[in-house]
Amino acid sequence: MTPQTFASLIGEIRAKRPLIHHITNSVTINDCANVTLSIGAAPVMAEAPEEVEEMVSGADALVLNLGTLSRNQVNSMLRAGRTANSCGIPVILDPVGAGATRMRTESARLLIKRVRISVLKGNAGEIGALANAGGRVRGVDSRGLDGDPLDIGKEFARESGLTVVISGAKDIVTDGIRAAIVENGHAMMGKLSGTGCMAASLVAAFAAVCSDHVTSSTAALAAFGIAGERAAQKTSGPYSFRTALMDEVAGLLPEDVIRQARVRSV
Amino acid sequence: MTPQTFASLIGEIRAKRPLIHHITNSVTINDCANVTLSIGAAPVMAEAPEEVEEMVSGADALVLNLGTLSRNQVNSMLRAGRTANSCGIPVILDPVGAGATRMRTESARLLIKRVRISVLKGNAGEIGALANAGGRVRGVDSRGLDGDPLDIGKEFARESGLTVVISGAKDIVTDGIRAAIVENGHAMMGKLSGTGCMAASLVAAFAAVCSDHVTSSTAALAAFGIAGERAAQKTSGPYSFRTALMDEVAGLLPEDVIRQARVRSV
Amino acid sequence: MTPQTFASLIGEIRAKRPLIHHITNSVTINDCANVTLSIGAAPVMAEAPEEVEEMVSGADALVLNLGTLSRNQVNSMLRAGRTANSCGIPVILDPVGAGATRMRTESARLLIKRVRISVLKGNAGEIGALANAGGRVRGVDSRGLDGDPLDIGKEFARESGLTVVISGAKDIVTDGIRAAIVENGHAMMGKLSGTGCMAASLVAAFAAVCSDHVTSSTAALAAFGIAGERAAQKTSGPYSFRTALMDEVAGLLPEDVIRQARVRSV
Repeated sequence: MTPQTFASLIGEIRAKRPLIHHITNSVTINDCANVTLSIGAAPVMAEAPEEVEEMVSGADALVLNLGTLSRNQVNSMLRAGRTANSCGIPVILDPVGAGATRMRTESARLLIKRVRISVLKGNAGEIGALANAGGRVRGVDSRGLDGDPLDIGKEFARESGLTVVISGAKDIVTDGIRAAIVENGHAMMGKLSGTGCMAASLVAAFAAVCSDHVTSSTAALAAFGIAGERAAQKTSGPYSFRTALMDEVAGLLPEDVIRQARVRSV
Repeated sequence: MTPQTFASLIGEIRAKRPLIHHITNSVTINDCANVTLSIGAAPVMAEAPEEVEEMVSGADALVLNLGTLSRNQVNSMLRAGRTANSCGIPVILDPVGAGATRMRTESARLLIKRVRISVLKGNAGEIGALANAGGRVRGVDSRGLDGDPLDIGKEFARESGLTVVISGAKDIVTDGIRAAIVENGHAMMGKLSGTGCMAASLVAAFAAVCSDHVTSSTAALAAFGIAGERAAQKTSGPYSFRTALMDEVAGLLPEDVIRQARVRSV
Repeated sequence: MTPQTFASLIGEIRAKRPLIHHITNSVTINDCANVTLSIGAAPVMAEAPEEVEEMVSGADALVLNLGTLSRNQVNSMLRAGRTANSCGIPVILDPVGAGATRMRTESARLLIKRVRISVLKGNAGEIGALANAGGRVRGVDSRGLDGDPLDIGKEFARESGLTVVISGAKDIVTDGIRAAIVENGHAMMGKLSGTGCMAASLVAAFAAVCSDHVTSSTAALAAFGIAGERAAQKTSGPYSFRTALMDEVAGLLPEDVIRQARVRSV
C-alpha cells in the first residue's frame, strides 16, 4: 500500500474505463457522474426496478447512496446489490444521514444485512449510528460519536466483515485488521455540497480495478484529497474551488500522487 | 431594518449554522444546497413521507418549492409543513410555475390553506395568479399581472396573513402593513436557472435567525443581490457568473452589505 | 442550409424565446435548463401526469430524454408527446442508453410508435440498437454498430419517417433523403456528463423556430460544436471547460457561426 500503488491504480482506471453504476441522490448526482468521468471511469445512473439488474450486470462496481432515499429506491438498491453480489462486483454504500432519521438508519442496516457490501463510507456520526457507538447526525452533518473513531471503525469492520471508511479531516480506512489514515484533503471540501458523494464514486472506481479494498479506498481518498489540496491553492470561493477540484481530478498525474500522498498505516 | 441589521444577520447565520430542510425541485436542488452552505447554513434535502416529519423536527427552517412537483411530493410538503408549524420553525413557499398549470396553482393554494406559511416568494405572475390578480405565467416565467405589484402583494399579504416576496428587477417584501423595495441585483441573475430558488433558500436561512420576516427576507434579497452585482462585475457569461455568484455569497462581508444595500421602505 | 441560415436561426430563437418543455433525467436536468437559457430560449421541466398536457400546450417544443427513466415517467412522456403532436409542436427524443437495457430499448420504441417524433437524437450504439443494426451500448456509451452509421441512419429515417441525428466525433443528420455531416465539436465534450443531453435541448430550441428539421438540427449541432471548440481553446480541465462552454453558447455571434461552421451535405 504505497503511493506508487495508488498512482498505478489511476492508470488502470484510465486504461480499463470501468462502468460505475450509481443509485444515488438527486442533489449531487451530476457531481458523481462528472467525478467518475474525470478519474477516467464511466458513470451510469439507473434505478427503475425493471432495469437495475440488467444494468448492474454490465457494470464493474455499484454505488448505493441514501442521500434522498425513498422506499422504492431502497428496493431497487436491494435488487441491484444482490445482482452485484452474484456478479462478483464491489458494492459501495454511502449511508448519507444515517442517524438523522430512523428511515435512513434502518435502510442502511437493511442494505448491510441483505447485500454483501464491500465498502461502507460515511462520516463519523453516520458510521457511529450504524455501529451503535452513539453517532450524532444533524441533517447530513456529523456531530461526532462516543469514543475513538478508529477503534469504532475497526470493531464495526471486524463484526460486519466489510471495509469501513470514515471520512473527515483525516480519513480512516479499515477492514478491522489493517487500518490507514489519509491526511490529504482541504477544509474547502467541507464547504461544498457533494464532496462526500464524489469520494464514494471514486472509492467505487478504484474498487473496480483492485480487489483489496483497504488499498483501493485509501488510494481513492488520497487521490481526491490531493486534488482538493491542489484546487485550494488556486481558488478561494466554493464554486471556483469546485471547478478546480474537478479539473484537478481529471489532471492527476502519477508523480503528483506519489509526491503528495500523506497516508500512514496504524 | 437597516443595512447594519442585514449584516448582523449574516453573522448570526454563520455563528448558528441553521439547518434548512428543503423539499424542492430536481433542476436546481444542487444550487439550493450549495447556496445554503455558502451563506453559512446547513442544507438537508429529504422528501420521503416516512422521514420528513422526523427530519424537519431537527431543522431550523423549511423550504417548499413546487418546481417539479408531483402528487406524492406535495403530500410530503403538507406533512413536513404541519410538523414545521407545530415546531414553530418558519416555512418558505416558492410556488414555481403557479399560474402555468392548474396543478401548480392548486397545490400552492392547498399548501397556503393547510400550512401556516411564513414567507411566500414568487415572481409577479406567480403571486398574481395566487392572489387572483391576473398573474400570467408561461413555463416558469412571469408575464406580468393586472395592476401594481406592490398593491397586489400588500393586499394578498394582509388577507392571507403571510409575508409576501415578489421577486423581479426590484424585489418587493411586504407583510401587508410594512413594505420594502430591494433594488440590489443584476440582470445576469435572470439568465441563469435557479437564482429564484437560491433566493428562497437564502430567505429561509435568514428567517431561521430572525423572526421578523419582513426584515429577514429583505436582508436575504439584499445580500443575494449584492453578491450578484459583485459577481457581474467580474464575469460576462452565465456560468462564469454562476461560479462568481456562489463565491460572492460565501465571501460576503458585513461592510459590503452595509455599503452596497439599496433598500427603501415604502 | 448555409451557415447564414444557421446564424439567422439563433437570432430567431433570441427574438422569440421559445418555451422548451423537458421530461428528462435527473443527472443533467440542470445543464439542460441552463443551455436552453443560454441559447436564448426558455426551459420548463414538468413531468407529473396531472400537468404535462397543460404545460406542453403552452410550449414550442418538447424534449423526451430516457436517461433515468421510470415506468411513470415514460407514461408522462406518452401523454405529453401525444399532446405535442395534436398541438403541432416538434418532439425530440433522446433514447439515452437504448441498447443497454431492454427497458430503455423498448421504451424508446414505444415512444417512436405512439408519438410522432420529429427528431431522434442518439449516439451510434443507441440508434443502431433501435434500427436493429447491431448497436452496442455499455451504460450510456456507444460501442459502435454493424455497418456505416450514415447508411443505417438514412435507412432508419426513411423507414420511420423521422429525422435522425447520430452524435459522435462527426455528427450525422438525415431525414432519409437529405443528409449532412457536422464536423464541429471538440473531444472535451466527451469528457463531461450532459453534453449529449444539452445537444438535444439545443436541437429542440432550433426546431421550435424552423420546421425543416434537417436544417434546424444541423444548425443546433454546428452552433454547439462551435461553442465547444471556442471553449476548448480557453480551458484544459472538464469543469473549466463546462463553464466556458455555457458562456460560449450564450455569447455565440452570427459571424462566429458563419465563419466557423463545418458542415457538408452528403
